[in-house]
Amino acid sequence: MADYTLHEDPLSGNCYKIKLTAALLGIPLTIRQYDIRKGETRTPEFLAEVNANGRIPVLQFGDKLLPESNAACWYLAEGSALIPADRFDRADMLRWMFFEQYNHEPNVATLRYWLAFVGEAHLSEQQRAMIPAKRIAGEDALALMDEHLDGRDWFVGDAASLADIALYAYTHVAEAGCFRLRERRHVCAWLDRVAALPGYVPMA
Amino acid sequence: MADYTLHEDPLSGNCYKIKLTAALLGIPLTIRQYDIRKGETRTPEFLAEVNANGRIPVLQFGDKLLPESNAACWYLAEGSALIPADRFDRADMLRWMFFEQYNHEPNVATLRYWLAFVGEAHLSEQQRAMIPAKRIAGEDALALMDEHLDGRDWFVGDAASLADIALYAYTHVAEAGCFRLRERRHVCAWLDRVAALPGYVPMA
Repeated sequence: MADYTLHEDPLSGNCYKIKLTAALLGIPLTIRQYDIRKGETRTPEFLAEVNANGRIPVLQFGDKLLPESNAACWYLAEGSALIPADRFDRADMLRWMFFEQYNHEPNVATLRYWLAFVGEAHLSEQQRAMIPAKRIAGEDALALMDEHLDGRDWFVGDAASLADIALYAYTHVAEAGCFRLRERRHVCAWLDRVAALPGYVPMA
Repeated sequence: MADYTLHEDPLSGNCYKIKLTAALLGIPLTIRQYDIRKGETRTPEFLAEVNANGRIPVLQFGDKLLPESNAACWYLAEGSALIPADRFDRADMLRWMFFEQYNHEPNVATLRYWLAFVGEAHLSEQQRAMIPAKRIAGEDALALMDEHLDGRDWFVGDAASLADIALYAYTHVAEAGCFRLRERRHVCAWLDRVAALPGYVPMA
């Protein structure tokens, strides 16, 4: 088995996705922590040696570096039951993972970061002006998830897949961004199902 | 072979990705057009029957509906040379496709849409306030691409893959969003290589 190092910040749900995937699969990870609030992923060394995009997570094995949380989860999970065997289900899993990065993360994760970690008083005027639109788009994403999970245990097919892991990461801490979870009962039941998976590890 | 219908708007680079993938693979598509500027993807019928997320593209085959452009490209290309056979390269291709949806599309595609199709005079005050940040983030994405392509013909490995198709769609029309392409010579050479692929079709 390759020796995996995860370059990460424990606050980041994107990093947690990879840790949860690895835990469910029984894959050990060596952790290398950075503090994004201190700019530790924007240093010349990080940009030159880990990720020119200045972002974590990055999964490293040997001389290979793999940025983008969902791509790293895919790499770890290839050949496992976390990627559906059916061709349509596999593409549909990717559909929810792209939805997560486009419709969910920029709203649900960003408001959590701004409100719970940066603090509203420290936001720029422009960031504050973006809160209402991100609030609406984030609630829309959660509503779409709730509607999809009505009558379903998992996002794709009949078992947990990377789609569930990707969407779980920032959904289960969405209340830190002042999103409403309690009334979304299909989402809440699904969060409990994910947390009951054998090998599950909590976020931090 | 399945009978594929693409629900699309010809202005959309996300839709074009699927048409380009299908063309390179010789797969015929039936086209069903919508005008996003007239709200045709937000009607009750569209939301109920095509995509509850109110977005195009959606790839339909039989009773299956697949939203998210990059997931639809993946579905069409499975088993073809557009998805690398090597495990790391396959994950690295997905890495660039997630980068496209997270770092590139919300900036490069959005400014093209706002400036070339909505018109700056018709933007909301909040949209206008977001232009400078989207300009910087879009130029950063293009700069990262240019740096990556220095010494490389394709984003991943030694051949065109879905990473190239995904990134080509909005990059080759980025000047409509007032992004600077000419000075990014590695990107420009790569755009020419994509346009020279056998089976290539232009955007509209």
